[in-house]
Amino acid sequence: MDYYSNQISKLIEELSCLPGIGTKSAARLAFHLIHMPEKDVRRLADTMVEARENVRYCKECCTLTDKEVCPICSSPGRDHKTIMVVENTRDLAAYEKTGKYDGVYHVLHGAISPMLGIGPGDIKLKELMERLREDVDEVIVATNSSLEGETTAMYISKLIKPTGIKVSRIASGVPVGGDLEYIDEVTLLRALDGRTEL
Amino acid sequence: MDYYSNQISKLIEELSCLPGIGTKSAARLAFHLIHMPEKDVRRLADTMVEARENVRYCKECCTLTDKEVCPICSSPGRDHKTIMVVENTRDLAAYEKTGKYDGVYHVLHGAISPMLGIGPGDIKLKELMERLREDVDEVIVATNSSLEGETTAMYISKLIKPTGIKVSRIASGVPVGGDLEYIDEVTLLRALDGRTEL
Repeated sequence: MDYYSNQISKLIEELSCLPGIGTKSAARLAFHLIHMPEKDVRRLADTMVEARENVRYCKECCTLTDKEVCPICSSPGRDHKTIMVVENTRDLAAYEKTGKYDGVYHVLHGAISPMLGIGPGDIKLKELMERLREDVDEVIVATNSSLEGETTAMYISKLIKPTGIKVSRIASGVPVGGDLEYIDEVTLLRALDGRTEL
Repeated sequence: MDYYSNQISKLIEELSCLPGIGTKSAARLAFHLIHMPEKDVRRLADTMVEARENVRYCKECCTLTDKEVCPICSSPGRDHKTIMVVENTRDLAAYEKTGKYDGVYHVLHGAISPMLGIGPGDIKLKELMERLREDVDEVIVATNSSLEGETTAMYISKLIKPTGIKVSRIASGVPVGGDLEYIDEVTLLRALDGRTEL
């Protein structure tokens, strides 16, 4: 059903394959692109292709970067003996935004999920274990507080404990500003279990 | 604040300039693009640039098309004596999807809006008036039911009436499946005014 011309339809179809973009949003985006100055469209297209071409995994922490070693791993100001394990680069960015963590990271690019058929071999766990051969004080597991994230955290802790390196898990509980009334029971129980002395 | 590498940040920034895409969605899209097969990213980028380069206004109805004259205007099966005036190509597509309208269209690419400084000269009204020199039976004004759409409809009707060509306006009222309880007063009054005998 080609209500638009061929090239517009093709563009809408391509755009609607992107995550979170349905047909309506894709049409809106397509018409926006068609009305944008030609050089801007060209720049956006080039940026996409360049990023896809040049972005790779950091040799150290496996985050996505356009350098051999990412800026965090190559920074002498960071504590290279503390490694925070996260599921993806966006989670890394979330902790970086706090500006308070000065250790380094390890990006797994996923979490163990038997449901989706993702096993320990499908995420960057081998790379993490290799890093532990060097001098590491602590591994902080900051995977999501989901079933997959928790499974991954358990697996990592079992894997690392024999090496004698300290393994910790970020706290699970009531978010700051959260109203107890609206928080689910599991979180409330977690917050209770994880209570600290005042 | 470059939590990501330079090229990822640049991509996120470019994507977040698109309508309806905030920083979070832009990051999600950027990481999706980076994980997509390289040939798919290249194809999407090419489609964008090609569409921008080749899409122009139809010589007849001003809709966006990659041909000189759009498929609707060049179809001999359509009634070229009935012209439906719409604000943009998406509105044209909305009526085309019904599959029941067999006339042709005229796309204004906007609506008169004194608030936004859009006057009659800024939309494709001159082109509409030129088309009326040929043999036209009826002009159906299908601009939106917004302040701007109504203003434009009034303006068009005043412009066309002296030519003796019939001008009509699509009905405004309760949408099919709409519950009166949740419909605003203005629409209810419109529906009352526009009542038809059973």
